[in-house]
Parts: sequence; structure tokens; C-alpha cells
Amino acid sequence: MTIQSIKNSIRNVPDFPKQGIQFKDITTALKDAEILKEILDTCAQHYRDKKIDYVVGIESRGFIFGTALAYLLNCGFIPVRKPGKLPAKVISQEYELEYGTDRIEMHADALTRGDNVLIVDDLLATGGTAKAAADLVQKTGAKVVEFAFVIELNDLHGRDKLTPIADVYSVVEY
Amino acid sequence: MTIQSIKNSIRNVPDFPKQGIQFKDITTALKDAEILKEILDTCAQHYRDKKIDYVVGIESRGFIFGTALAYLLNCGFIPVRKPGKLPAKVISQEYELEYGTDRIEMHADALTRGDNVLIVDDLLATGGTAKAAADLVQKTGAKVVEFAFVIELNDLHGRDKLTPIADVYSVVEY
Repeated sequence: MTIQSIKNSIRNVPDFPKQGIQFKDITTALKDAEILKEILDTCAQHYRDKKIDYVVGIESRGFIFGTALAYLLNCGFIPVRKPGKLPAKVISQEYELEYGTDRIEMHADALTRGDNVLIVDDLLATGGTAKAAADLVQKTGAKVVEFAFVIELNDLHGRDKLTPIADVYSVVEY
Repeated sequence: MTIQSIKNSIRNVPDFPKQGIQFKDITTALKDAEILKEILDTCAQHYRDKKIDYVVGIESRGFIFGTALAYLLNCGFIPVRKPGKLPAKVISQEYELEYGTDRIEMHADALTRGDNVLIVDDLLATGGTAKAAADLVQKTGAKVVEFAFVIELNDLHGRDKLTPIADVYSVVEY
């Protein structure tokens, strides 16, 4: 089992969600028990000695890896969600899309000053959502220790948006 | 650590998403590393000898527990998603809401005849979404072995909708 076998397990779907986009479909990797285990163990190994207090996962595909990673690192999981989904008092962060803006939310009492946080999502594209999640974490006084992604799309330079905040780790790159 | 301590960790938020509803907020349980571990280990222990091939998790809070459970059971994870999110060929299932209908989708090639499937979501309310997920699984010829929920709201009788298909397991009940 190698990084190449993880890469081989990710399906390329042409022209999704629109013409010209080569979509990296992670469902074929998730479905393979050995690959799923390899992805999660590889990530967990990378963070074993980094003293993470909380994994923050971004809705909804960040939930897929985030909770399992929190379990493996013996830390708590905190969801960052789309507007209106979290029931208690939230803090909110807007971010730019290709056309227009969007917004994500986190419970206002989810984190405390000094907490060490790992932000997790499945895919790093332009980095807009991950940057907004980091803004939310920092509003609470907590510290972003690192960003973790299963897939990084190098051509979109999302890493450049995030490295001023914290290091970026990805399992496979395209 | 007991079932009662899991229950104590779940926050009650009154009047969300609307007046009169007592919302069971699982984020306070997820945030507590020991509780998160207890929930997942309790579920995994229940399924240890049931020969599950795949965990099917329902978007988006079913993703939170589904993947971690798949990891612990050494099986693959398959997401059931809202319309238009999955990139390859899908099968689709409509289900009724209080007002109107909604639809969920699964990749058409996600399961094969004879696969043993565990359907996972965070909360069992009326059971409409879980029933629709079971319909999708059964369309492929795969078998629903059981439904697993972290929280079951007894007053809404969702269990009655599901037990004709398979047994229902929940970690805590209200």
C-alpha cells in the first residue's frame, strides 16, 4: 500500500460539475476498506506528536475524514457548517466564490483561547473555504496548527492562501 | 464512561429549528474526545461480528460517524448525498417531508448484489431519510443488515418505518 495506490483509487470524472473540469471523485477511495484505512492512518501518523486538541471539519466532505481523524488522534471534533445548520450561538465568516460570496459558521463556544486546532477537508482547490474556517478558529483565540487535505490540486494554488496562517499537509497531489 | 454520560454530553437547544422543537445538539458530544471515542467504540463493538461489507452514511451528519465506524469495522464507506453532489452515474430516491418531498442519491456502482450494508445517521426522527437510503441500497441488490443511529427520538416512531426492512440500533434514546 503506497501513496500511488491511494492515487489510483481516486476516480477522475471529466466535465463535472461543469464542462472542462476534471473532478477527483474520492468515493471510489472511501469504498475500498484498505485504502480508507491507509489514508486515515497516514494522516494520523503525520499528526501523532503535534498535540492537536481539536479537529475542525468543514461541511460536508470534511466530516468524512475529520471525525475518524479526531478519533485516531484522541481529540474532539468540531463541525464548521453551512449557514443556519448549527443550533446554538454561532460565529460566522464570509468568503469569496468565483461568482458572489458564501458563508460558514461555527458554534461560538466551540473553541477557547490557546486550543490547538487541525483544520480538515477532503480537497484543497482555491483554499477559500479553508481560509474562512481558519478565520473562524482565530476569532476564538485558538491556534491553527495545520491544514490537512486528502487531495491537493496544485494548479489552483490554494496553498498560497493558507501558508501565511499555518502549514499545509496533503496526502496526494495533482 | 456510561450511556448516561453520553446522554449528558448532548446539549438540548430549545426552539430550534423552530418554536416548540427541543433540538438534540450532538456537537457538544463530538467535541469531547472521551465521549466521541465511547460512542464510536460502543457502535463498533455492536457490529464486530456482523460481517458488514460497507457502511452507508447519509449526508451530512451521517458522514460524521459513518467513516469512523467504517474504519473501526475494517470496511468501506459509501456516501448517500443530496441531489447533484455525486459526480458519476447515480440512482435516486424520493421521500416525503412534512411539507413536500426531497431526494437523495447514491452512485449506481457503489454496491453489488449480496453486499452486507449498515446504514448510519446521527439521529432517528421520523425515519424518512433512512428509509429512502435503504430503498437505494436494496435497488442494487445489496442487503441492509441494520440501521445505526447515535440518537433515537422515540416519540416520532421512526423505528416503525424501518424495522420491516432491518433491525434498528441506537446508542441513546429520548
